[in-house]
Amino acid sequence: MKRTLINELKENEVTKISGWAKKIRNTKYMYFIILEDRSGSIQVSIEKENNEEMCNKLEGILTDSILEFEGKMVLSEYVKQGGKEFIPDSINIISSSEASPIEEGANIDTRLNYRWIDLRSDKNNLMMRVQSKLVESFREYLYKNDFTEIHTPKLLGAASESGSEVFEVKYFDTKAYLAQSPQFYKQMALASGLERVFEVGPCFRAENSNTNRHATEFTSFDIEFAYIDSYEDVMDLEEDLIIKALTDIKNIYGEDIKELFNEEIIIPNKPFPRIKLNDLYKELHERYNYKIPTEDVGDMNAETEKLTYKFAKEVYNSEFIFVTDFAKTKRAFYHKRENDIPQGYDLIWKGTEITTGAQREHRYDVLKKQCEEKGLTKDVEFYLQFFKYGCPAHGGFAIGIDRFIMLLLNIPSVKEEMFLFRGPTRLTP
Amino acid sequence: MKRTLINELKENEVTKISGWAKKIRNTKYMYFIILEDRSGSIQVSIEKENNEEMCNKLEGILTDSILEFEGKMVLSEYVKQGGKEFIPDSINIISSSEASPIEEGANIDTRLNYRWIDLRSDKNNLMMRVQSKLVESFREYLYKNDFTEIHTPKLLGAASESGSEVFEVKYFDTKAYLAQSPQFYKQMALASGLERVFEVGPCFRAENSNTNRHATEFTSFDIEFAYIDSYEDVMDLEEDLIIKALTDIKNIYGEDIKELFNEEIIIPNKPFPRIKLNDLYKELHERYNYKIPTEDVGDMNAETEKLTYKFAKEVYNSEFIFVTDFAKTKRAFYHKRENDIPQGYDLIWKGTEITTGAQREHRYDVLKKQCEEKGLTKDVEFYLQFFKYGCPAHGGFAIGIDRFIMLLLNIPSVKEEMFLFRGPTRLTP
Repeated sequence: MKRTLINELKENEVTKISGWAKKIRNTKYMYFIILEDRSGSIQVSIEKENNEEMCNKLEGILTDSILEFEGKMVLSEYVKQGGKEFIPDSINIISSSEASPIEEGANIDTRLNYRWIDLRSDKNNLMMRVQSKLVESFREYLYKNDFTEIHTPKLLGAASESGSEVFEVKYFDTKAYLAQSPQFYKQMALASGLERVFEVGPCFRAENSNTNRHATEFTSFDIEFAYIDSYEDVMDLEEDLIIKALTDIKNIYGEDIKELFNEEIIIPNKPFPRIKLNDLYKELHERYNYKIPTEDVGDMNAETEKLTYKFAKEVYNSEFIFVTDFAKTKRAFYHKRENDIPQGYDLIWKGTEITTGAQREHRYDVLKKQCEEKGLTKDVEFYLQFFKYGCPAHGGFAIGIDRFIMLLLNIPSVKEEMFLFRGPTRLTP
Repeated sequence: MKRTLINELKENEVTKISGWAKKIRNTKYMYFIILEDRSGSIQVSIEKENNEEMCNKLEGILTDSILEFEGKMVLSEYVKQGGKEFIPDSINIISSSEASPIEEGANIDTRLNYRWIDLRSDKNNLMMRVQSKLVESFREYLYKNDFTEIHTPKLLGAASESGSEVFEVKYFDTKAYLAQSPQFYKQMALASGLERVFEVGPCFRAENSNTNRHATEFTSFDIEFAYIDSYEDVMDLEEDLIIKALTDIKNIYGEDIKELFNEEIIIPNKPFPRIKLNDLYKELHERYNYKIPTEDVGDMNAETEKLTYKFAKEVYNSEFIFVTDFAKTKRAFYHKRENDIPQGYDLIWKGTEITTGAQREHRYDVLKKQCEEKGLTKDVEFYLQFFKYGCPAHGGFAIGIDRFIMLLLNIPSVKEEMFLFRGPTRLTP
């Protein structure tokens, strides 16, 4: 017999259903089981009299077991669960669960040890589906706009962007390094004649830090495209992309998100407000008496990001704000500069930086000089070659999808958000 | 001025175009440049008289440079290139290319050193777009069928499936290993209450072999779904997926593929032919006098795969054939068995295995026994836990997208097919 999804059951039609036993109530005369599949849930009601075989099989079965029933759905005014219940003729125990090893109110580190159980909650299930939808929605926008998806190597011959935070791999008789980002290779794709590319893939950072927003491995949505006139084009595309994704998510999951996460999705208007870093410093000082610490001048820190959000809400009624004109000492060597100012931006959403974007320097000679200025030479020599044989002007950005979802759903930590978190002391399960 | 794509140019409209100089012809009175962007190409014609400034800028400019022109498109009966030419008023050299370091007819290893130049050919550009379309098409099918996309960790605490071919990573004060496949974690996702999942991501294999179809890093399209009745459900879904993708690719790129690769895309019919391994041996023996070597009994080897294709073409007129009923000693421990026969298959396309699929063993006790039988215990202990607290019956498969495109376009090696190949002696660029 073929399985029917719970929300597709028709009255009195004999069929098969299967799913998780979310609740099992064993009363004097009856078994009541709440069975859940991906479409919904239903109460399965078994009269103990006349159903000895089914009752024997249910003996000792705990919630979270996987059960399969043959029988039929009937309408009943006594049942809360949508006025429907399922009356089975037979039961099949697909998988019987042991008692849950996670105690009520366990902290996230304990729950992570049993992440597959932790993920079963309605909230986490929704979170995973929203994450999938976000990536789907981003991709949909990009496909429609002539982007090609690429898959760049994660095993590198050189330590690339910054040697200190890179993982080293034993690679036969030599060493390899894990990619911290696809930055160099997405740019290579443009030098390869693809005009617009994106990649969704893992990035690896050997940062020995334990914050709520860092992981040693995370999924990055990377975009790079050619023939831009300035980084305005990059910001413009990012605005469209975010508006499209938030709109899709709100349409499909907005109500569920409100119910389970108590979060309202606000669709931003175009253009997002923009401010130069020095003007921002001035505003934050005047409004909140905040002065950027000397070591962070030319850049933002966590405190600045939080106040910038406050400022954006107050002045522009916007959750998003672009900050531009960072100091060149605080930006990567490959950002294009004009009058010594990096042609890029940070995008702040709800007090957290979600993107660094920029026009890139595509002229070999200038790029080489900017490399040398930062003291990089040997490790990026291979990268410089990409610009010697013709390369269009281009720019791009990256969005960490875990951080994005964390902010969207107001989840306190990436540990809670990622399918499986990886940190300095966490490599399991 | 905003850029106009070449195939969107309107007669006599003043605008800007930019792209690759694919050819530059410098005659006595004229410069003729074939300029190409993602939409197409056009001849740019510059009369030397009266255009001294443009000519000075073009002095010494080589093909593959990136040029930008302002001017207008006019119709001309003298021009081959679609009867259109572009008459510029001004030129801007975006990026000037050095002479190509790749000699005509250079072998693939030389070309890989300059992969970004090698990828610029019409064939390679099409190949990259077809690869992107394949993945897009697979995903589209899966989204429509309630699948959730996941991103599983590539850094593992244990050497997982088989210790010998795994890369070791220096991970702070300990060691990590690179995932050979997302197998265990896509199964974990089903134990986590997601019913149907997929992932597109890198797999790492420390195989020190140099064949035309192996790489140390490749992109795998992994699918896993729950509540199946048998591995017939898995084969069924794979058929639908492949038919959909091939149909999409044929519709969009079929003509281009025929022109550049001389390959006709054949859309298979459902169901693909299926044969049990022992019956296949018998057929290959009777028809081609082929006997499987003793060490490969219960499995297939490259020779068997080639003859199986011949057999499938002759008997079923099919490029695809499923082979089932392999020996349990030759299959992974997690394949479900019935009467000791693994409930899985290999899918052979054009003489090459493109997929191993199976129903998985989801019952903790049975799975544990199958583990022990293979001598695996400690490294898979974490994996066994996924099945202790409830897990639906499930199955799945994986498709290596590089191998798939290689076969589709009849490309002789994955080196030629991958964006950037990685092998035992190849970590650059």
